[in-house]
Amino acid sequence: MKNTAPVHSGRHFLQIPGPTNVPDRVLHAMSFPTIDHRGPEFSTLGKDVIAGMKRVFQTAGAVVMYPSSGTGAWEAALVNTLSPGDRAVMFETGHFATLWRQMAGRLGIDIEFVSGDWRHGVDPARVEELLSRDREHRIKAVCIVHNETSTGVTSRVGEVRAAIDHARHPALFMVDTISSLASIDYRHDEWKVDVTVGGSQKGLMLPPGLGFNAVSDKALAAAKDARLPRSYWDWQPMLETGHTGFFPYTPGTNLLYGLREALAMLLDEEGLGNVFARHVRHGEATRRAVAGWGLETVCLDPREHSNSLTAVFVPEGHDADRLRDTILDAFDMSLGTGLGKLKGKIFRVGHLGHFNDLMLCGTLCGVEMGLAAARVPHKSGGVAAALEFLGQR
Amino acid sequence: MKNTAPVHSGRHFLQIPGPTNVPDRVLHAMSFPTIDHRGPEFSTLGKDVIAGMKRVFQTAGAVVMYPSSGTGAWEAALVNTLSPGDRAVMFETGHFATLWRQMAGRLGIDIEFVSGDWRHGVDPARVEELLSRDREHRIKAVCIVHNETSTGVTSRVGEVRAAIDHARHPALFMVDTISSLASIDYRHDEWKVDVTVGGSQKGLMLPPGLGFNAVSDKALAAAKDARLPRSYWDWQPMLETGHTGFFPYTPGTNLLYGLREALAMLLDEEGLGNVFARHVRHGEATRRAVAGWGLETVCLDPREHSNSLTAVFVPEGHDADRLRDTILDAFDMSLGTGLGKLKGKIFRVGHLGHFNDLMLCGTLCGVEMGLAAARVPHKSGGVAAALEFLGQR
Repeated sequence: MKNTAPVHSGRHFLQIPGPTNVPDRVLHAMSFPTIDHRGPEFSTLGKDVIAGMKRVFQTAGAVVMYPSSGTGAWEAALVNTLSPGDRAVMFETGHFATLWRQMAGRLGIDIEFVSGDWRHGVDPARVEELLSRDREHRIKAVCIVHNETSTGVTSRVGEVRAAIDHARHPALFMVDTISSLASIDYRHDEWKVDVTVGGSQKGLMLPPGLGFNAVSDKALAAAKDARLPRSYWDWQPMLETGHTGFFPYTPGTNLLYGLREALAMLLDEEGLGNVFARHVRHGEATRRAVAGWGLETVCLDPREHSNSLTAVFVPEGHDADRLRDTILDAFDMSLGTGLGKLKGKIFRVGHLGHFNDLMLCGTLCGVEMGLAAARVPHKSGGVAAALEFLGQR
Repeated sequence: MKNTAPVHSGRHFLQIPGPTNVPDRVLHAMSFPTIDHRGPEFSTLGKDVIAGMKRVFQTAGAVVMYPSSGTGAWEAALVNTLSPGDRAVMFETGHFATLWRQMAGRLGIDIEFVSGDWRHGVDPARVEELLSRDREHRIKAVCIVHNETSTGVTSRVGEVRAAIDHARHPALFMVDTISSLASIDYRHDEWKVDVTVGGSQKGLMLPPGLGFNAVSDKALAAAKDARLPRSYWDWQPMLETGHTGFFPYTPGTNLLYGLREALAMLLDEEGLGNVFARHVRHGEATRRAVAGWGLETVCLDPREHSNSLTAVFVPEGHDADRLRDTILDAFDMSLGTGLGKLKGKIFRVGHLGHFNDLMLCGTLCGVEMGLAAARVPHKSGGVAAALEFLGQR
């Protein structure tokens, strides 16, 4: 039987904003035989990856990890800290913030959802105002998305923290870093975040399948009184892992092999500071290309441009998904679709994870040729503008 | 200990004209356990890869393969067909033709080496003239390099064949296809080539380690009388492999796993015709980029441009190796160095094997930025010219 799937030559360009390109080294590490997750060899692995993840979260506190998607790590953050009817404030920064809100609603949390235009991050002034008004401290948690994967807008977590502090409000602070962790500078301890939510399939350069929570002492204290039902997601039995290296139930062993390899690449070889600088560079180059094409990013505030992905509007009357299809057919590159109310209006370019200048160049060339092939009106100077920037190193 | 090797993020661009990028599928296939090379499972593998290689060589005749480099396959071609003092004609088309000549000389063959400027392929008229003059048929072999990896010049094998026929000369015709096989259309039977020499590490998308000979009946007949000493390279015990699947001595089993996978990709999925068309397309796009930069290819005859690599002069007074170093340092891309008398004068861009439009775009962007970074005088329109061409699909 002839294979009827499209024929690829060369490497597929997986430029959705995650899952991202997995390095061969990580794939190779994952191909080793699964070992006894209660045996001595596993103990070292478990302790190593927890220790490495603390460095990634920039925390001296607890990190737990689940065999789960990022969505699971969202749920873990909520059920470990809140009780039925607790009030939490969330911000409509985009599709994923909206999904997290829906989850919180289903779990019985009373959500105040601050509406937004999907083109801005969380407004720290609005946070301060809301919390200052809440004199009885009915708000138990402020939950924000650091990097909105649906819009390419990054909220200023440190400024939101400062706003909470100015309001002298005791609410827990929870941050989703699924598409920013290990790509965009993020400081769990310095920003006094109580629960940080992460996933394996973006900046960590792994396949999907691991969910993370970094947890402050304040969150651990809150967990003692939190009454939402929890079992799979319960932090308590997970907290031993850092010391024993063992998990309370079967961990995703081979993903942990991959994680150990990815952590060596990120922390010991490239170094987190260089990883962040690389993403800054690629974000800037991509935005210069977008400007060169005369197109508009979804993000409106220059302080909030994401450095892990760029979301771009196609001109009115054109279908971004048709453009994406054209690019996939003609150039074997996957770009991110518009989610929710942005469907058909935007495409998203992932420039995070296992990536470099020439991979970005290939990506931007594919977009530029695709815009022409799909007859989407644009100027042709995008690639040239990116090369001009990337060439100055 | 900190790793002191340069840090790579993303994929290295291995754009030397071979060894080429090995597909993950091929690497994966090679990672299976080595099996008994005298057992029944091996027999199927051996027969499969010989059958596939016949399709690659476009021959119904014999194909033999060695655990060797391409250099070994050169030696096999000579020692199986010639006797000490036999005269052979070779053509100075570049560095590799010169090396093959040196080998033949060491083996005791009497070489007539037709000098050349390293910017043209074999001149069919010169072949006809030389053979026509040789009324006593002292010339036993005409040996040419199909695609000169050192210059990016492709000789017109079919026309050379016609020249031999016009001269009504019985010389054996031997062709090195190391950097053209499975990239540039090559027809062992149609062009009545007697021995075709190949290697694994270029168009076949494998690591180095396999050498090939495709062998005509006329060459097999010549082998009966050939008196150069031979043992490792002897075709005779190898010829059974096509029927039995077994080799006379230990074969490179895991490379054969990889070869089986690569053959599936080339022959059954993409199809050889599409593979050739892809290389034509990428050769043309690269040459348009070179013209856009205002630079000069080594190849002077438009009929002879290689579609698997392009060799490019840097302007007088500039060092091509410094440019290559700059590109490797700044953009993690390896380009081919100038060999022999072209050292420092040229760089070579490989665009063969496991490759596609966006990988080529990344490659050309890297060259363009590198030319600027190394302050090599050039025009900036190279990438734009390539995109213009590649976008018209």
